[in-house]
Amino acid sequence: MLVVAAPAVPIVDTVQYSPEIVSLSGNCMSEASADAAPAVRARSGGRAGKRAGASSAFEQPPFRRLKRPFPPTPIVSEDQLEAIHLASLRVLSEIGLDVLHEDARRIMKEAGADVREGSERVRFDPAMILETIATAPSEFRVHARNADHSIDFGGDNLVFAQVASAPNCSDLDRGRRPGNQQDFRNLVKLAQMHNVISATGGYPVEPIDLHPSIRHLECIRDLATLTDKVFHIYSLGRERNLDGIEIARIANGLTADQLLDNPVCYTIINTNSPLKLDIPMMEGIIQMSSHGQLVIVTPFTLAGAMAPVTVAGAVVQQNAEALAGIAFTQMVRKGAPVGYGGFTSNVDMKSGAPAFGTPEYMKAQLLGGQLARRYGIPYRTSNTCAANAVDAQAAYESVFSLWGAVQGGGNFVLHSAGWLEGGLRASYEKTILDIDLLQMVTEFLSPLDLSEDALAVEAIRDVGPGGHFFGTQHTQDRYKTAFYAPILSDWRNFETWAEAGSPTAVEKANRVWKERLASYEAPAMDPARREELDAFVDRRVAEGGAPTDF
Amino acid sequence: MLVVAAPAVPIVDTVQYSPEIVSLSGNCMSEASADAAPAVRARSGGRAGKRAGASSAFEQPPFRRLKRPFPPTPIVSEDQLEAIHLASLRVLSEIGLDVLHEDARRIMKEAGADVREGSERVRFDPAMILETIATAPSEFRVHARNADHSIDFGGDNLVFAQVASAPNCSDLDRGRRPGNQQDFRNLVKLAQMHNVISATGGYPVEPIDLHPSIRHLECIRDLATLTDKVFHIYSLGRERNLDGIEIARIANGLTADQLLDNPVCYTIINTNSPLKLDIPMMEGIIQMSSHGQLVIVTPFTLAGAMAPVTVAGAVVQQNAEALAGIAFTQMVRKGAPVGYGGFTSNVDMKSGAPAFGTPEYMKAQLLGGQLARRYGIPYRTSNTCAANAVDAQAAYESVFSLWGAVQGGGNFVLHSAGWLEGGLRASYEKTILDIDLLQMVTEFLSPLDLSEDALAVEAIRDVGPGGHFFGTQHTQDRYKTAFYAPILSDWRNFETWAEAGSPTAVEKANRVWKERLASYEAPAMDPARREELDAFVDRRVAEGGAPTDF
Repeated sequence: MLVVAAPAVPIVDTVQYSPEIVSLSGNCMSEASADAAPAVRARSGGRAGKRAGASSAFEQPPFRRLKRPFPPTPIVSEDQLEAIHLASLRVLSEIGLDVLHEDARRIMKEAGADVREGSERVRFDPAMILETIATAPSEFRVHARNADHSIDFGGDNLVFAQVASAPNCSDLDRGRRPGNQQDFRNLVKLAQMHNVISATGGYPVEPIDLHPSIRHLECIRDLATLTDKVFHIYSLGRERNLDGIEIARIANGLTADQLLDNPVCYTIINTNSPLKLDIPMMEGIIQMSSHGQLVIVTPFTLAGAMAPVTVAGAVVQQNAEALAGIAFTQMVRKGAPVGYGGFTSNVDMKSGAPAFGTPEYMKAQLLGGQLARRYGIPYRTSNTCAANAVDAQAAYESVFSLWGAVQGGGNFVLHSAGWLEGGLRASYEKTILDIDLLQMVTEFLSPLDLSEDALAVEAIRDVGPGGHFFGTQHTQDRYKTAFYAPILSDWRNFETWAEAGSPTAVEKANRVWKERLASYEAPAMDPARREELDAFVDRRVAEGGAPTDF
Repeated sequence: MLVVAAPAVPIVDTVQYSPEIVSLSGNCMSEASADAAPAVRARSGGRAGKRAGASSAFEQPPFRRLKRPFPPTPIVSEDQLEAIHLASLRVLSEIGLDVLHEDARRIMKEAGADVREGSERVRFDPAMILETIATAPSEFRVHARNADHSIDFGGDNLVFAQVASAPNCSDLDRGRRPGNQQDFRNLVKLAQMHNVISATGGYPVEPIDLHPSIRHLECIRDLATLTDKVFHIYSLGRERNLDGIEIARIANGLTADQLLDNPVCYTIINTNSPLKLDIPMMEGIIQMSSHGQLVIVTPFTLAGAMAPVTVAGAVVQQNAEALAGIAFTQMVRKGAPVGYGGFTSNVDMKSGAPAFGTPEYMKAQLLGGQLARRYGIPYRTSNTCAANAVDAQAAYESVFSLWGAVQGGGNFVLHSAGWLEGGLRASYEKTILDIDLLQMVTEFLSPLDLSEDALAVEAIRDVGPGGHFFGTQHTQDRYKTAFYAPILSDWRNFETWAEAGSPTAVEKANRVWKERLASYEAPAMDPARREELDAFVDRRVAEGGAPTDF
């Protein structure tokens, strides 16, 4: 077994480039450079030279706990919603799910489910399901090690988490490649640096240069130290789950007892649609819920593939699977924090490939939100696209996804920054594009100033018919902060823009991520906590982590 | 004065290319070609060879009268809305507007407005304004010469109209250029061919090769014959207004009396913000409203330029100006059809250039809709962007605009297909992108199928845990029409897409508009009506149209 030693100084606050960049992009970048590459520094007007910390190296809106200021949009009537709900309950009681985890079946049986000897099939009585999920909290705080970055889940709260689980990553310079630790860390740093990203979502890209036995240890250590935001733990078996929870406990300075009532990390449980709950999932719920940590149950119900070809049918199945998983969290521990995840989309019927950010996806987002609200469970959805490039398609599929997320009453938007190619790729440029989109959505959702001054009747009187407001005191007092200043939008007139080489949004995004990443600084961490965390991870790595047979 | 003779055969149903294309694109296109250019035909797999008419030459969703199936999203509380309303009334009563048209001032005075001898300033009593606008209808049909294409304005109806009034146009082959008749006609044909575009919006691009004296005659003849959809008449003085109304009357086969209760065309009245109503605008309202035709009053209130720098203040001013214009339509003719137009956006405070599709724009869209609903007046908004290229920026600004339009309760979305560069350019590729976006929005707004069959409990039972739905009868019966088939979205996997040359959405749009335009066929028209229309236009052209002094 390959054991990759933990680096002596795991926090690297400069951008490092692999030798490939030099040959691919022709830029004068050097892996040995102790700072950002000269080519980048030259273009950034000296900004990369500023080492004043993440929050002051570039302008951005502050971290905030965003709330949706208006009611979500219902897509079906109450009667129609009830029909979907009842159909899901029929699936649970008449068809049931296959539960592969023996101990989980035992817990379900004790809770009143119909479990028969010698069969993995579990059927759930509708009344029992509804009674069981009733103990799930409808709104709660998930604590970050920096309390300022703790997030609220449920109600009108809206949290944006970074892309997760992409096997590949890409940028304009180096193209598409399998994930590695360098890219993993770079993307995690970008999540830390940007206030609009409230949490990381897992591994933004899978670092395949880390052996699977110790990958979770190195990655979760990075998530807990390169960021001070809430992070995710993959449910990959008991040993890894417990490692992850322990790292989160140490990073947050809590005792095991305190952990029980203070969620500090979360896991996504994707059911094996249709109607199957496998061993790692059930193990994940058992470990996370019994420790009081957040579980988000998200069926992966692609209409036409793992779910019926109709949106309504796919959501019926999504809802049945979600209810089963959510109920199980409450069987493990009453009151354990849990989220309802919706991920229903359609497939390209020509190729079977998943499609995202489609009208069907938006409908499923709204419908999923309506169901989650019916049960009083916080709702998770996503910012998705199927595009292969950061082009118009990537943008429209993402904004459609955000439209569905916001109007659907989404509380937690996973994959909100960086997702490309149906989740097969984390893109540096898409990360910047998404950050801009999320900041715009945040501004859209910020309450309007309706003070007497903002209504501006006196300013209108002062200017009068035929005048203009450019130079007025009312404008002078406000113009610097009056409007959201976008990262990418190019508002120059055509001639100036053409003279500048007709840059598109993705080209600007390429420049921005390099400039910004160069100014990354690790968030402060209590040295004792850091020492305890490193001691734990280093020991577990030395032990071989969670052994695999390859 | 240059008089351009009406062409003997004004309807050309093939794509014509100017000689520049050949040199610019290197394609083997010939202006003399009687059909689509060979290069295009080869790529389209023979589709361009089909001459079976617009609706069958390519697949698209049918023409429909779209209705928003859920309530619009309020952005402020009822109390807050009232505060904005009252601030607008204070502007109208305490500050007033300058009305440059003498006869309009007389009409206003007769209706009870405060008009003083020797002054252009007109002040409006709040009660009088509210009483006057109360006669405006809240929902009505605007008739197209093809009754199947008539549109409903107001209520939950949602109509998409083409881009209007761009001075320039562009496509990927020929780049950006001032508008001309050829491009004008091509864009109008694209509007006719696509069912999701319910109406044209004016001149999609200004044909500057037509002399202004007769431009309105040639253009409106084209709008009335190359399309059978509702069209717009620019308010450019009494003579042109009456020419336009007469062409619309003839095209629709109505008598002057019938016209009074049957709107068949519309005009957009942009106030000269701040607080000024000029002579052509007032003349436009007088002619259109007295003939029972639709007037959409749209203040052009850019926050920070022609309106206060705060969104709330800009909307207070927008609302005051809109109310004054709307009231004037009812003073001219009680019950005349009228729309409330919102166009408030912000400016780039660095350059003063208008910004579009911004968070501020979306807020103004929602707020404008809430005000329009308060008054029971149909609401017009737009699909805008400030991008210079059909890139990610163009896409996200447009989808944000559509988000604001739909959730804001927009009834009529002008500039919905083709707008680029803050309205300075109509783009062929953006037209196709927007058509795709509009079709996606339409699909999103289409009611979900919630039949027993669609809920699919039996299909879920048949497949059972661990199966898949690809080959099931339930899927087979539905897969062809289950999901919206996008025009541009490229859902191929990365490898296949890369092998195909990594095409972006805009490149595909370039191919699509050429293929589709090549299949244009003029809509049928009663020969007698056509003869009467040509006789009228030819006579007016021979008379010199509306003489100008240049």
